[in-house]
Amino acid sequence: MREQKEYAIGIDLGGTKILGALIHTTGEHVMEKQCPTNAQLGGQSVIEQIYFVMDSLLAEGGISKEKVIGVGVATAGVIDSKRNTVVYANNLGWRDVPLGDLIYRRYQLPLRLCNDANAAAVAEWMWGVGKETNDLIYITVSTGIGAGIITGGKLVSGVGDSAGEFGHISINTNGPKCGCGNVGCLENYVSGTAIAKEAQARLSRGEKSSYLNAKDGSFDHITAKDVGEAAKQGDSFSVKLLREIGVQLGIGITNLIHLFNTEVLVFGGGVMNMADSILPTIEETVKEHCIPALSNRITLSQTILGSKAGIKGAAGLFFSKELDKSYTFQSV
Amino acid sequence: MREQKEYAIGIDLGGTKILGALIHTTGEHVMEKQCPTNAQLGGQSVIEQIYFVMDSLLAEGGISKEKVIGVGVATAGVIDSKRNTVVYANNLGWRDVPLGDLIYRRYQLPLRLCNDANAAAVAEWMWGVGKETNDLIYITVSTGIGAGIITGGKLVSGVGDSAGEFGHISINTNGPKCGCGNVGCLENYVSGTAIAKEAQARLSRGEKSSYLNAKDGSFDHITAKDVGEAAKQGDSFSVKLLREIGVQLGIGITNLIHLFNTEVLVFGGGVMNMADSILPTIEETVKEHCIPALSNRITLSQTILGSKAGIKGAAGLFFSKELDKSYTFQSV
Repeated sequence: MREQKEYAIGIDLGGTKILGALIHTTGEHVMEKQCPTNAQLGGQSVIEQIYFVMDSLLAEGGISKEKVIGVGVATAGVIDSKRNTVVYANNLGWRDVPLGDLIYRRYQLPLRLCNDANAAAVAEWMWGVGKETNDLIYITVSTGIGAGIITGGKLVSGVGDSAGEFGHISINTNGPKCGCGNVGCLENYVSGTAIAKEAQARLSRGEKSSYLNAKDGSFDHITAKDVGEAAKQGDSFSVKLLREIGVQLGIGITNLIHLFNTEVLVFGGGVMNMADSILPTIEETVKEHCIPALSNRITLSQTILGSKAGIKGAAGLFFSKELDKSYTFQSV
Repeated sequence: MREQKEYAIGIDLGGTKILGALIHTTGEHVMEKQCPTNAQLGGQSVIEQIYFVMDSLLAEGGISKEKVIGVGVATAGVIDSKRNTVVYANNLGWRDVPLGDLIYRRYQLPLRLCNDANAAAVAEWMWGVGKETNDLIYITVSTGIGAGIITGGKLVSGVGDSAGEFGHISINTNGPKCGCGNVGCLENYVSGTAIAKEAQARLSRGEKSSYLNAKDGSFDHITAKDVGEAAKQGDSFSVKLLREIGVQLGIGITNLIHLFNTEVLVFGGGVMNMADSILPTIEETVKEHCIPALSNRITLSQTILGSKAGIKGAAGLFFSKELDKSYTFQSV
């Protein structure tokens, strides 16, 4: 009986570790379990590790399986949510793994797959920054850039589960060709990779930083994190660079707001750990560039769920915030 | 009883004319009625004209009011769909007109408002190019640029009914400031206005066209339509200009596809009447710039409903294609 199924299992399937949790419909974590992914031992070992996490949660959680509505899995891989299959995940050594069938055969529980930015968006919407809205976008800025988009209380998946490629929108039609095929992609200007590259290039050209120094005559070791830490110390080279990055990202975000008329934007990912250095510039740029009727309603915020957003959101796929949220109940 | 309510009234509320139709749930037009908007006679006259269209449709349509589920109105104005109010419509002389209340008081019928690009998207999705998909974007390119976006079988409205401002996404962060606040907006490069301006500027600088001639030493009279007609005649100046426009628009559309993982793109609006000159370039650019997994599934097409898309889509707001389409039934 559905009334009793008040728990879901959320799994965050990463390249180095698997994090699982038994989660109540209120968002409360009854139990968590973590183990290494063991991808180097082959694709089958990764599946065994998932079973291990599932078994542990069910055995040690003190909740009978009949009370669990299903298993949500967040992954960075390419998924097919209709077939509940991971089509391709380089970091797991997986190709066409029918995870839904495997889990159902072993546990008689339905599975839902989603990408990790989407899971984070669902989590922030159900239990985090976006509890009061139905129009939220989660933006992750780390090595690359991604987005999970909720509009009108529904996750935007697209026809092939590939929506939200925010890093690959062009903000410069005369910009460099990107690996994705597009030109002048946002990711080329504002990701962690881009920040490191730009800092290295400027320093090599002779610009001066009071904190970032050459090693053996080269600046190739400098990372985005180094730039962030230097900015915190007041290094004007780094402050200026991050300001420029914040303006570019702010314009990209303005594009999102103009398309989605979003209410809440939530930021996660490594680069956003430098939020103090970059968030005020983003906010200022959005205010300046947005159609006023749209920017008036915007709230920008850092993630409040952090590294728990993946598991929470994956489990959240089974809990409806609104009865009309078709994504949540259609495939049970 | 809902079973009997198999008709809706669709109204396309334009600045010069009001077009109305009594439409069956199959999309069939039982009857159409058109009259001038009479905006020059003041805001109240516009309302009277709507009543006239409604009265005519109900009296002459041969369908009893009990069989009508509601009235959908498509407008270019700023709307508040929750309050069923037209907040601002310059071309109608309207400010805060509670159209929903007015219609309900007079006809005891519920009303739904949406902007005209959204109405066209709904129409093409329910009865036009996009019948087989749940992920469709309608793009209108005329004086300006707009979009109506359907994702997962749901219209994207945003928190303030202002989603779809496709003309105001930046494709050049170093581009000129736009009236909207953003910089390098797509609309500055590819709208009808932009095409005319660019042609005038190039000809004034001395570029040669075999079809577009100066009048009294000036090129200021040249319109986008002129450029389109010259291109059709083989004018290499115009062919080249429209090719460049098509590339810019193609990159803008690639941005949409990367965000929405859309399946069908439908084009309408005056500039797209030159589809022969511009659509092949857009298609080629999208193929070249899109992530292959996303472009493989894309169909680009001109509107097949044309000037009827507005009334059909407005009525369509009352007919659900899928039971879970929350937009359709939540506010009845």
